[in-house]
Amino acid sequence: MGSPSAAPWKQLLLNALESNKHSSFFQLATISSNGRPANRTVVFRGFQEGSDKILINTDSRTRKIEDIKHCPFGEICWYFTDSWEQFRINGRIDIIDGLNPDPVKLQQREKAWFASSLKSRLQYFGPGPGLPCVNEEPCKENLLDPYIGPIGAFCVLVLDPEQVDYLNLKSNKRLMFKSKQSGDGEQSWVSEEINP
Amino acid sequence: MGSPSAAPWKQLLLNALESNKHSSFFQLATISSNGRPANRTVVFRGFQEGSDKILINTDSRTRKIEDIKHCPFGEICWYFTDSWEQFRINGRIDIIDGLNPDPVKLQQREKAWFASSLKSRLQYFGPGPGLPCVNEEPCKENLLDPYIGPIGAFCVLVLDPEQVDYLNLKSNKRLMFKSKQSGDGEQSWVSEEINP
Repeated sequence: MGSPSAAPWKQLLLNALESNKHSSFFQLATISSNGRPANRTVVFRGFQEGSDKILINTDSRTRKIEDIKHCPFGEICWYFTDSWEQFRINGRIDIIDGLNPDPVKLQQREKAWFASSLKSRLQYFGPGPGLPCVNEEPCKENLLDPYIGPIGAFCVLVLDPEQVDYLNLKSNKRLMFKSKQSGDGEQSWVSEEINP
Repeated sequence: MGSPSAAPWKQLLLNALESNKHSSFFQLATISSNGRPANRTVVFRGFQEGSDKILINTDSRTRKIEDIKHCPFGEICWYFTDSWEQFRINGRIDIIDGLNPDPVKLQQREKAWFASSLKSRLQYFGPGPGLPCVNEEPCKENLLDPYIGPIGAFCVLVLDPEQVDYLNLKSNKRLMFKSKQSGDGEQSWVSEEINP
């Protein structure tokens, strides 16, 4: 149980992903700078290599970046409609934008950019999300050089799970997983069955 | 536009509900007393009669009640998978439990109780949600008197929308609706097209 790759909830999540169609999105809650909760649908971009950290691509001009800079915690609510399973994943969110001083993180960002479709990449060339519409000229897909690396607006969010609340509505079972840091910095998970 | 029933986003939502199967649930974000966001799937129980307020049934023993008492704001994220529409609905949440001093609200609570299935009602007789499992004896459906009114654990949440952020991923249109209170207390809505 000591190794992060042995997180006991991860296999449940991988099983759910395999047995549900259209399951690659979930809702991410954050806290806005005005002190109110915020909630939006985002796309799951996989786990960070060799870890249980969850990757999300986003535009650095969206409100959620401001939210996370103000309060770095988030809770994912991921409901699987076919298998009636819910994962509530709470943790700290790290923002990797183009100004990140860590070369390893910048490499992860580049990898995430090239892993996304040309159509997804095009969004980052558009006008600032959430701003009033002015006469927009949509950027054309065939103008995008597929070899150009991530542009300024592109950033990656990395959510590091600390607590996972798993609910299975078919079996009516609920499990709470909590991450523990031991004295030597090793991460491990404890789990408990709780009432649904 | 002055009457609350004329909320311009409501028709969009009713259309989405009509054209999407399995669309009666959404994710509700709140802020926990530990200052972190919380997020879970809940069931839409309709609008409060003659208003745009959104009804949710819940157990008074769940953590969200504590959250809402601590911070009375919530954001619903409602994603419609067939029509690719998202509604982010932000507003203040009122809790109607059995101790509510307002007889009109108690009547609404009773109505919500009888409008829910016997199976749903049975959940409120179960052990406290989120507590460690002890040897439970599930309450049997045939023991529940269908004429018995709401029990102590049953409560209704009423979310009063103040802002609705509507996104249509098929047309790539996004509209922001904001509620305005005029000097005479009349509520009205303003809307603006914003960048997706």
